[in-house]
Amino acid sequence: MTDFTQVPSDAFQQLRRRVAEITRYGAAMAVLGWDQETYMPPKGAAARARQLSALAQLVHRLSTEPQVGEWLAQAEADMQAQGWDPDGDPARFLKVARREYDRATKVPTEWVAEFSRLTSEAQHRWKEARQRQDFALFAPYLRRIVEMRREYAEFFAPYDHIYDPLLDAFEPGMKTATVQALFARLREAQVALLQAIMARPQVDDAFLYRPFPVERQKAFVRQVLAAMGFDFQRGRLDESAHPFTTGFSVDDVRLTTRYKETDFFGQAFYSSLHEMGHGLYGQGVDPAYEETPLAGGASLGVHESQSRLWENLVGRSRAYVTWLLPRLQQAFPGVVDDVSVDAFYRGVNKVQPSLIRTEADEVTYNLHIMLRLDLEIALLEGAVDVDDLPRVWNERMEADLGVRPRNDAEGVLQDIHWSMGSLGYFPTYALGNVMSAQIWQALRRDIPNLEAQIQAGQFADLLAWLREHIHRYGSKFEPLELLERATGAELHAEPYLEYLRTKYGEIYGL
Amino acid sequence: MTDFTQVPSDAFQQLRRRVAEITRYGAAMAVLGWDQETYMPPKGAAARARQLSALAQLVHRLSTEPQVGEWLAQAEADMQAQGWDPDGDPARFLKVARREYDRATKVPTEWVAEFSRLTSEAQHRWKEARQRQDFALFAPYLRRIVEMRREYAEFFAPYDHIYDPLLDAFEPGMKTATVQALFARLREAQVALLQAIMARPQVDDAFLYRPFPVERQKAFVRQVLAAMGFDFQRGRLDESAHPFTTGFSVDDVRLTTRYKETDFFGQAFYSSLHEMGHGLYGQGVDPAYEETPLAGGASLGVHESQSRLWENLVGRSRAYVTWLLPRLQQAFPGVVDDVSVDAFYRGVNKVQPSLIRTEADEVTYNLHIMLRLDLEIALLEGAVDVDDLPRVWNERMEADLGVRPRNDAEGVLQDIHWSMGSLGYFPTYALGNVMSAQIWQALRRDIPNLEAQIQAGQFADLLAWLREHIHRYGSKFEPLELLERATGAELHAEPYLEYLRTKYGEIYGL
Repeated sequence: MTDFTQVPSDAFQQLRRRVAEITRYGAAMAVLGWDQETYMPPKGAAARARQLSALAQLVHRLSTEPQVGEWLAQAEADMQAQGWDPDGDPARFLKVARREYDRATKVPTEWVAEFSRLTSEAQHRWKEARQRQDFALFAPYLRRIVEMRREYAEFFAPYDHIYDPLLDAFEPGMKTATVQALFARLREAQVALLQAIMARPQVDDAFLYRPFPVERQKAFVRQVLAAMGFDFQRGRLDESAHPFTTGFSVDDVRLTTRYKETDFFGQAFYSSLHEMGHGLYGQGVDPAYEETPLAGGASLGVHESQSRLWENLVGRSRAYVTWLLPRLQQAFPGVVDDVSVDAFYRGVNKVQPSLIRTEADEVTYNLHIMLRLDLEIALLEGAVDVDDLPRVWNERMEADLGVRPRNDAEGVLQDIHWSMGSLGYFPTYALGNVMSAQIWQALRRDIPNLEAQIQAGQFADLLAWLREHIHRYGSKFEPLELLERATGAELHAEPYLEYLRTKYGEIYGL
Repeated sequence: MTDFTQVPSDAFQQLRRRVAEITRYGAAMAVLGWDQETYMPPKGAAARARQLSALAQLVHRLSTEPQVGEWLAQAEADMQAQGWDPDGDPARFLKVARREYDRATKVPTEWVAEFSRLTSEAQHRWKEARQRQDFALFAPYLRRIVEMRREYAEFFAPYDHIYDPLLDAFEPGMKTATVQALFARLREAQVALLQAIMARPQVDDAFLYRPFPVERQKAFVRQVLAAMGFDFQRGRLDESAHPFTTGFSVDDVRLTTRYKETDFFGQAFYSSLHEMGHGLYGQGVDPAYEETPLAGGASLGVHESQSRLWENLVGRSRAYVTWLLPRLQQAFPGVVDDVSVDAFYRGVNKVQPSLIRTEADEVTYNLHIMLRLDLEIALLEGAVDVDDLPRVWNERMEADLGVRPRNDAEGVLQDIHWSMGSLGYFPTYALGNVMSAQIWQALRRDIPNLEAQIQAGQFADLLAWLREHIHRYGSKFEPLELLERATGAELHAEPYLEYLRTKYGEIYGL
């Protein structure tokens, strides 16, 4: 275990202490954010916003002080002079710290302040526009956001593609061209698969919507998460309007979910498995990385690979369902006693094109994402005007998914991301899906009886593999490097497509 | 409503912004502290301690920078030159800010660091000593704490009494001589009253320990607190090992309590009324004082006057019990159907000398406090040696309360306060009791039908009076000034003694 306090560079030690201090304030912000979404009384919001803003300004100031740049440069010089192992933790510490410092200092403070004002207002307008189902109310704000994101990209010039700097903020080292090639391959195959499925008789999932008492849902989910490896001594599961995962240290990881009596699986159950995937990642990072730049996950995409792996590759597998169903029948007597493993398995894997990304199944999910990526790039390049966005959105939905929004709320206004200025974020969801299947392939190679283990409710080998090959590294490696080290292959679409074809071919008798 | 941003002094505005910033970090610390006691998973403790320590150092640094002293001095000069109203909010803002700055800067940083290390270690040793019922393990730490508290007092020389600077930290402007005179009067009368009560037949309170299902306790307490005026839009009630109240703004006040099925009244019910008293104070401060030095309560004693008023003067009154009992019987069918209002009233007011302060009734509580005050002063003056403390403690318990600890855990080791270095804290509990009765007397004068209102479950006039005369002022006035403004009289013992004599004379037929 690396002891960073022993690295023989004064500048590195100064930098390390500063990073640790900033991390503590960042963790405080995360606690305040968690409380805001879980327990804060309604009228506490105004003071909470002021508290978070004060901490955000503090963190920004401490992160971008010229002194930090000097420590960084001197530590890099010490590294060169002393010949540190470039794959060693101290060198990677510096690499990630440099990346974060450059990202934070290349963007002028005035731009950050103006963008913050703009997106704060834009979020209010987006809510209003969605409520009134009227994109025109939001359009001027989105137009300005796109303009400012173009300016943002210029701060990172030169680049291969104007979208690269935006993508890189969420997926370090990832290139737009790589994503576009990957998505082109996926889109063609997923659209074809979806059309084949839609020509077949639909599966029945009505039993999933039977009433499951909420208090028992809570106990059951907790029991399942503990059985799967989530450590409740180092984490919690609470309730919030929108499920999320946050963490204040490797030993304090918070998941949230939501409960609805007549939608146990659509709300609490699978979202809890999803968040648990994020949470297991958070609990699995090398403790030596605490309060260093290496503590977080490698990227949003890698994080999503973990959440989707536990939610789908594990949680919607036949082996898992075989283990789960008798436990479910015992915990909720009489509710699904008449449902067979086969029927349950088909039910939780029903493919149904829908308008809303967050409700999408495994076959259609990526199609929602690709639409967004293409529109974001078209907006940045000026190929599509903001005013035309609803029309282009709806046409694409019809072409890829065969469904057409009846209004803007069901279409272009459904997601909050653009109003927050988060262009570049969406692709990480689909990248996570693709990575999850590639990791799964490697897992099955290394653990030949993986399915039998899952069917027996044994998740320890699975979790140990993920810890060993993914989790413990935190953000030491960039996503593509991490994936190649873990799986022995570059990022590619085949494992995900093969997984979809095999699974859904069997379910829908293709 | 005062708008502090309009005060025509640049130095004042600089100071005001600094105080607001510090307040936000302080609120973040309070959120982290609340989470630590309510929801934090067990293994989150180490990281949380580092986060809180980083914020504490930040707040201390920002509070004590020489620049702050310069702004303060310049703002005071501006106040003189411009002739501000000395009773106006801006002048009081400066007075409290000056007091806090001087308190923070008169104590050398090295002393603070050493005391922090000492008390951190002392708390561990105190826990161990209490567990082993062996004061000798803790004695060396207490000896050093007393020595360092002597040094602390010298930072504030000259003083009338070595205890004055310690007391003043919790009770601004209060003098040891005042407290000693008050306590001498109380002690004589309360010991005599207790002896008279002990000569009479005891009341029966066995029904209080019948099982009340915990889930229903939670709903009932929440319903009662809402009925009494606690605003759940601006606050919460959660669970913790030891009940406490904290707040992050006037609009976000958090209470905690604990539940035990067979001790509803000793645990959840009356502790919730107590914490609600603190919480109503927190919710009642003038919103214009947010993020200024005037935002907190006037002192621990005044805060305790509010918690004890709602817990005892209201909550253990015959009128209140008359309102409460039928609601209790309805919420817990069959549990106390056979108990009359009179029996219930007597039961919740049972006087029983005990060894433990936190379990003491209204007649004996102050006696526990006086013992501690006298011992603290004797230790500081060197009149009692630390090694003799258990003997002196036990003799005094026997003399005043007629009970003698069987071991140190039941005696001198029962409270955590000394191990935390908090000498000067205990008297505030008894001051709160005395103030509460004096405030109650004024309340009954101003609201002639107060008892009838309470019996009808109407608490609005009561709360409005407290808001008007106490809560809204925050810490604008020092405790004695506030009390005199609110009640028209100086702090004196008679209202409390009269309250005890009347109430317990009737209950015990004296």
